[in-house]
Amino acid sequence: MKKATGVEQSQPLFRQVSDNILNRMERGEWRAHDKLPSIRLLAEEFKVHRLTVFKAYRVLTEDGKVYVKDKSGYYVSADSVSSEEVEDGVVSSYSLSNQLSDIHRMPAKYQFSQALIDPNLLPNIYLSDYVKKVFDMYPKVMGTYATVQGDDELRESLSQHYSEHHRLQLSSEELLITSGAQQAINLIAQMMLGPMDTVLIERPTYSVAMDIFRRQGARLIPVQITPEGYDLDEVETLMRTHKPRMFYMNPTHHNPTGYTVPAWQRKVLVELAERYHCLLVEDDPFRDIYFDEEPPLPLFAYDTEGWVVYISSFSKYVAPGLRICAVACRYPFMEQLIKAKSLADNGTPQLNQKIFLHYYTSPRLQRHLAKLRIALQVHKEIMEEELAKAGWEWTAPKGGLNLWVKLPGDITAEALFRKSITQSISFVPGEICDPLGESNSWIRLSFSFANEALLREGMQQLTALSRTL
Amino acid sequence: MKKATGVEQSQPLFRQVSDNILNRMERGEWRAHDKLPSIRLLAEEFKVHRLTVFKAYRVLTEDGKVYVKDKSGYYVSADSVSSEEVEDGVVSSYSLSNQLSDIHRMPAKYQFSQALIDPNLLPNIYLSDYVKKVFDMYPKVMGTYATVQGDDELRESLSQHYSEHHRLQLSSEELLITSGAQQAINLIAQMMLGPMDTVLIERPTYSVAMDIFRRQGARLIPVQITPEGYDLDEVETLMRTHKPRMFYMNPTHHNPTGYTVPAWQRKVLVELAERYHCLLVEDDPFRDIYFDEEPPLPLFAYDTEGWVVYISSFSKYVAPGLRICAVACRYPFMEQLIKAKSLADNGTPQLNQKIFLHYYTSPRLQRHLAKLRIALQVHKEIMEEELAKAGWEWTAPKGGLNLWVKLPGDITAEALFRKSITQSISFVPGEICDPLGESNSWIRLSFSFANEALLREGMQQLTALSRTL
Repeated sequence: MKKATGVEQSQPLFRQVSDNILNRMERGEWRAHDKLPSIRLLAEEFKVHRLTVFKAYRVLTEDGKVYVKDKSGYYVSADSVSSEEVEDGVVSSYSLSNQLSDIHRMPAKYQFSQALIDPNLLPNIYLSDYVKKVFDMYPKVMGTYATVQGDDELRESLSQHYSEHHRLQLSSEELLITSGAQQAINLIAQMMLGPMDTVLIERPTYSVAMDIFRRQGARLIPVQITPEGYDLDEVETLMRTHKPRMFYMNPTHHNPTGYTVPAWQRKVLVELAERYHCLLVEDDPFRDIYFDEEPPLPLFAYDTEGWVVYISSFSKYVAPGLRICAVACRYPFMEQLIKAKSLADNGTPQLNQKIFLHYYTSPRLQRHLAKLRIALQVHKEIMEEELAKAGWEWTAPKGGLNLWVKLPGDITAEALFRKSITQSISFVPGEICDPLGESNSWIRLSFSFANEALLREGMQQLTALSRTL
Repeated sequence: MKKATGVEQSQPLFRQVSDNILNRMERGEWRAHDKLPSIRLLAEEFKVHRLTVFKAYRVLTEDGKVYVKDKSGYYVSADSVSSEEVEDGVVSSYSLSNQLSDIHRMPAKYQFSQALIDPNLLPNIYLSDYVKKVFDMYPKVMGTYATVQGDDELRESLSQHYSEHHRLQLSSEELLITSGAQQAINLIAQMMLGPMDTVLIERPTYSVAMDIFRRQGARLIPVQITPEGYDLDEVETLMRTHKPRMFYMNPTHHNPTGYTVPAWQRKVLVELAERYHCLLVEDDPFRDIYFDEEPPLPLFAYDTEGWVVYISSFSKYVAPGLRICAVACRYPFMEQLIKAKSLADNGTPQLNQKIFLHYYTSPRLQRHLAKLRIALQVHKEIMEEELAKAGWEWTAPKGGLNLWVKLPGDITAEALFRKSITQSISFVPGEICDPLGESNSWIRLSFSFANEALLREGMQQLTALSRTL
């Protein structure tokens, strides 16, 4: 964010004018092929010399943002409102759209696009009874604001939880409560990223994270993730040559692929982060959703120098409706994060924090988790059975909520989606998860939301549909 | 936000490099008087020609952000991390600090700085019993996400509420639910404001709003607010000459002064907004906290062209802990707002929306409000009695939670605050509320949080303290 003032202060006048024109074009004030205000008018508006506006328009014309028509005036170029560029593996974009949420907004009977847990798999009745107790414990919880950093009692108990379960050494001062993992990613991006900054990002990855980083003007550098993890030589080369500000990763039961980065790579990655001063942003929402053995420790567990920010949103499968997420990092980074949170919403509601605190600390949660893992594994196996019948390819994940599936032959995800959505079957086209906008023959299928009957039915219809293409 | 990408795309290389250096200075990577990397190193980092880095450093040196020492290298200037400029009434700043929340963090027995309602004035027991019913009505509320725009049922009922109570013609599609008014202001600022953009803002005003606008790089233009409202000729001149993107206002029981802009001015302001294409951002949290007669209608009620965004956070005195706020505006602006919300946190928790819905629609709320108004009026009168005894000056507000008080003689707010905080008395120094950083002899006293006994006691101690200065 501060880059904004920085930019404002450090730029020559004509550049400030051209940026202002660009901003307003991108805000939709002027659309493609609109006539732009005359030099005279803008000079008056900005109280600058006409030559300054002339210079600004010239730059915009050179950049192809604006074109001149019959010498009479300046017009908005068609491509200047949204453009995409690829340059030695570095991707940038104007994209502000949250395509994923667009897809989620489409109603579908066979809901394979939402990586959400079927509410019927959550202990709703117990939760409700439970919450009532919470209100008796904190009669004034509705009348009081939380602190910006988050409820002390919750942060205390989380720091214990992390040291017991994940061997993370954390004080409650090193935890910030946010409203969901997405807010955490957004706050970190606002603090860390400005134009010219580069970000390492997995390919494929969580598409909303790309939207957030691009909105900051950052350049994305894809790092391929495979069932074996990353190519660490490639990661080191990218860190050395591009000096990225951060590496946004989801190394455990990765979204969308379900892959898990092995422990030995985690140690090395932390060393690389220290050596190249690249912040590792470890997004870890699916840790407890494993099918056979527990996943390796978080990268944060190997970090001694404060180069890992750990985003732990396990409320996702406890009570997603609460939107409780905990971010762990060291000072002074935490200080900045708290400041960003205080401007964003001044703190997550106390109510949600107290409910979550007392629920997740209950023995009931562990019983619930064990049951949930089995239920999700059954879901996964139903989906895999149908995929196998149809001869589609995927790598069986050790956890998480999704399958990353290669479509047979030359079927494209777009073609399949166009047809499937008309039959009320939704999924996520791989292209949306790909920083390079490719992966057109891959799709993400979430097995967590639809119930078993709908899963089988929907998968049979989807695979049948593909044969008609 | 998009300005970032805009900047990235449209800037010459050396400018991108200098911005990047500035960003990193402002992020604290390099602090005042730190030696900056050599031209050679940066040229390697950015993969640009050394002359480009040289040019970048030269610009930064000219701008005083960087200085050269014994030809050996470049160093960060002391003032380049934070600076303030005033130029024909236009204020800009690097300030990112949320000073208000710093003050609120200070513990105080006599809490006159928080414009919050004493939790004991809220019907906590009733609320708790009430909430339990809500969980029976929506057993799965903890397991489901809300839509980005907000719960349909809540938006439907709010649109009815506004048309019945405030004569606002609104469809539920024209309402967005946010987590508190501050998030709403932040989302609007991120959509609307970039460098070179100007914002009209009341003087004095809500300090966090200034922090948010400045973070976007916007320039603030103060508009004096008095017990009679604004000087509309001045407002029109400012709109004509500065073409501000928006006017952020709190025209009803204004924070911090308690003043209310009269109805006739509201009509004119909407006309001015239409004529000069200046968005009016009407922040209206204190509408229902009036002491004798109801306040005039919101500006939004007079708007036919979509130039008013209405922020209604009446959850403040219903159940502040829920952090429920409703933003009303027309399309296509609403479309952009929803997109910003979807990236920020993907929607406000369903739970909080359902609880709020059923509570505020209950007849109990109206009874509660009537009682609350009387209680707050009593609080106000206690504070006013003590001010009168001490001969301090203020204008009795018709509503709200604060008194805006002129300190006697040449006492400064800072001097008084330094002393009072040692005696556990807190208030808000006027300077924090002033876009020009003046108003040193004014303070904001909130009468809503401390109980009657503490109010009298604390005010007697505060006025006594002032005599020792």
